[in-house]
Amino acid sequence: MVIKMTLIKIPQKRFEERREKLMKVLKELNLKHFIVINPTSIYYLTGFSMIATERPFFLVLKDGSINFFVPELEKQHVLEEVPNTEQVRSYFEYPDIIHPMDHFSKFIKELKISGKLGAEGGGARGMWGYQGPTFKNALKIPVPIHSDIITNLRIIKDSDEVTCIRESARWGNLAHQLLQQYTAVGENEIDVSFRASHEASLKMRETLGPDYFPVGYGARPCGAGYRGQIGSYSAIPHATTRNTIFQKGDTLVTGASGNVAGYLSELERTMFMGEPNDKQKGYYAIMMKAQQAAFDTLGPDVPLFKVDEATRAVFKEAGVMNLVQHHTGHAIGLEGHERPFLDVGMNDIMKPGMVFTVEPGIYDRSIGGFRHSDTVIITEDGIDIITEDYPRDLESLIIDR
Amino acid sequence: MVIKMTLIKIPQKRFEERREKLMKVLKELNLKHFIVINPTSIYYLTGFSMIATERPFFLVLKDGSINFFVPELEKQHVLEEVPNTEQVRSYFEYPDIIHPMDHFSKFIKELKISGKLGAEGGGARGMWGYQGPTFKNALKIPVPIHSDIITNLRIIKDSDEVTCIRESARWGNLAHQLLQQYTAVGENEIDVSFRASHEASLKMRETLGPDYFPVGYGARPCGAGYRGQIGSYSAIPHATTRNTIFQKGDTLVTGASGNVAGYLSELERTMFMGEPNDKQKGYYAIMMKAQQAAFDTLGPDVPLFKVDEATRAVFKEAGVMNLVQHHTGHAIGLEGHERPFLDVGMNDIMKPGMVFTVEPGIYDRSIGGFRHSDTVIITEDGIDIITEDYPRDLESLIIDR
Repeated sequence: MVIKMTLIKIPQKRFEERREKLMKVLKELNLKHFIVINPTSIYYLTGFSMIATERPFFLVLKDGSINFFVPELEKQHVLEEVPNTEQVRSYFEYPDIIHPMDHFSKFIKELKISGKLGAEGGGARGMWGYQGPTFKNALKIPVPIHSDIITNLRIIKDSDEVTCIRESARWGNLAHQLLQQYTAVGENEIDVSFRASHEASLKMRETLGPDYFPVGYGARPCGAGYRGQIGSYSAIPHATTRNTIFQKGDTLVTGASGNVAGYLSELERTMFMGEPNDKQKGYYAIMMKAQQAAFDTLGPDVPLFKVDEATRAVFKEAGVMNLVQHHTGHAIGLEGHERPFLDVGMNDIMKPGMVFTVEPGIYDRSIGGFRHSDTVIITEDGIDIITEDYPRDLESLIIDR
Repeated sequence: MVIKMTLIKIPQKRFEERREKLMKVLKELNLKHFIVINPTSIYYLTGFSMIATERPFFLVLKDGSINFFVPELEKQHVLEEVPNTEQVRSYFEYPDIIHPMDHFSKFIKELKISGKLGAEGGGARGMWGYQGPTFKNALKIPVPIHSDIITNLRIIKDSDEVTCIRESARWGNLAHQLLQQYTAVGENEIDVSFRASHEASLKMRETLGPDYFPVGYGARPCGAGYRGQIGSYSAIPHATTRNTIFQKGDTLVTGASGNVAGYLSELERTMFMGEPNDKQKGYYAIMMKAQQAAFDTLGPDVPLFKVDEATRAVFKEAGVMNLVQHHTGHAIGLEGHERPFLDVGMNDIMKPGMVFTVEPGIYDRSIGGFRHSDTVIITEDGIDIITEDYPRDLESLIIDR
């Protein structure tokens, strides 16, 4: 049975709205046209998700109209997936005998743009062995760079984006439940993570129906795992998988998310293999207090730095500021981390529609890391912790197997 | 039982060799010191694999010595994983009250470098909402950019790299076998891909033993899948998953790889759901002929463009050049695509130790895509097709379930 209670795709009108907003910002900058180079920005503005490679791929907004410059292998793909496309110009390949940027220069001339042209970056994104000239050098006109305007548009999420992020959290929750269920002394992190992610993804796919798919190259519907944060290695916040076997006494730090129209959430829990000792319990309690201080501070009209100050106050009072290695959190949406940050250096004001991870942590290399991460939506009158269905109390997070 | 017949980590002496080679190239450019910004380059030179984020992370080679500039949450990680590190300087966070680039400027002054400093890029990689000044503006000295020298060092693989890529191919092969085995009419691409990847990864992990782990954020040991290239959508070379159900008559295009010390291989096959019709068989035969023409042309001392010319000659003769959407292949190693490319525009000469994918394809939107990809090592006296254990003949690739 297929139950559709949620949004699984961003409606076309949203992409139109976003492009209109962008054109208004461009107008204020005295720009009429814009070259978009970031794949996330292109998805945000058109709904087209690509496998980014060395081949230049640009969206050219000519007075607001959609024009694509793409490698031949993306031409048909774009034509089918982006309605209201004015033009798709393809070049055969990179590097080829004629460089794609020479074709692009011709294309821009043929577009006969009048008025100023800007760009999201200096040229094609240089990845996977790409070499090429800047826009300025290829087009032989000044092309002012405004790398932030689309990223900044993404800061306030509209109600459809929030719906997708909520739905992502539901499936992160399921994947995490299974992760906790399959974790046991003697089991291996890679296996447990694969099993939980596979089973939860299957359920998600069945529930959301045949029109659902995860957006992005290599994306899976949902998943959960440890990426090496097991035992004392959980004190390395950015550890990666070490093929670790769970042992009694381990402190664990997890991560889980779902992919709904490319939107993400973040759910992380500190867990224990067996009853934690007093030191583990002590760190856990401090971390919980810091996270609560963040929840109590988060809300509309509050400057972001206040949240980081609130968690630091807890850590300082507990005498563990030396165990802190990062700020309280970051925005999240189409990317795993987004601007703005819950950081002492951020004066921006929280507004409804912003979405943050709240994840103050402390790290003792001899014992482990202590960090929950919850995803929070700033609402008109407060906050909504969309991952709070997953228990945060210590008793619920002890694995006695 | 744990059988270790292969390499699962790059030996430290290789990282030393690579840094020495880099220093020689720098000397020719009249540079004494170098700022490395690309995470793949940092791994290539030191063996340190990171989760790349908005936080600036630089390797500074001061006269060849290893100095890291990292966010606090990576300090301990780097200290433990990179031997012979001269210094790890950490800043607390990005954005923070003092911008990381101000800390970096101080760090460079304290390093008291004499002689010219160059960099792999103009500044920190701008991802996930990062904003900051260029090296030139932050350091207030000229910092010439040489974005290609490390990428170019990676073109010729040493024998340990080749061993890892070979091992990768073994596990790509297993994942692909399982993918083919589990694919059946009525099954779903997400499920089949998860099941094959999970089972093959488990076997790989068991076989390579407890010291093995896949390198990279979100990396799995090995995997195989379709990413949407099913039925007529297989004619979209860069399709992404559509949550598709397999149907009788479908043309399929697959992909499989393994991760050994971060090194990759590529195995792709065109398969059919049931006996293919004459048109499918015709396209398949042309594609096979083109791939054979590439194999026949590949080898040491041959210019790269010759290979692409050889496949084009086959496609032209068969009258299907209009169905071609990309060149013959690309180098592969630590990244999915690498320089150089098997492309008509590439005059570089093939040398022993280069590794390429060989994947000429044709695409008919009404029927599907026809592309095998095999990974080939250029040897002293010819080529070694390391994915050839997987059958390429049509009969072996028909799925009658």
